[in-house]
Amino acid sequence: MYVILVYDLSQERNGAKTQRWVFKICKKYLTHVQFSVFEGELSQSQLEALKAELRPFVRDDLDSIIIFKNQNKNWLKKEYIGQDREDLTSNIF
Amino acid sequence: MYVILVYDLSQERNGAKTQRWVFKICKKYLTHVQFSVFEGELSQSQLEALKAELRPFVRDDLDSIIIFKNQNKNWLKKEYIGQDREDLTSNIF
Repeated sequence: MYVILVYDLSQERNGAKTQRWVFKICKKYLTHVQFSVFEGELSQSQLEALKAELRPFVRDDLDSIIIFKNQNKNWLKKEYIGQDREDLTSNIF
Repeated sequence: MYVILVYDLSQERNGAKTQRWVFKICKKYLTHVQFSVFEGELSQSQLEALKAELRPFVRDDLDSIIIFKNQNKNWLKKEYIGQDREDLTSNIF
């Protein structure tokens, strides 16, 4: 399945650490396309593994991660306005 | 078609103004689900109108907007880790 993952993490309570870890974990599984946006093809087990790794770092009262899942990448078209930053930003951390 | 719009706007060169305008324009067409993430059902003409309104505010050398388009919302599943912020954040500006 094709996955788009977006996150909005609070800077409160040592948020920088959460940011670093969530970024690193997502990078292992997906392509970084924009500051807090990742995308890529994952199997169900890979998605479960990604979620399990992320789970300990996400603070339910502060953070939000949305995972959009699409059964087939061909059903998903993509357009840019402005820059295409795919993996230009991967050296953020 | 079902649209997911994500943006990453630079704070340089009066970026706050760009942020305000891009946010307001997106809110007219889509639901705000996370800090820089919007989603919703649009016709092709509505999408063209949204892009035309956004175009003057996006600085090609600084900003990035990605529009994911899905022919059918039923092909798209959504999961949350942490908070579901759908429209909780709509009073940001």
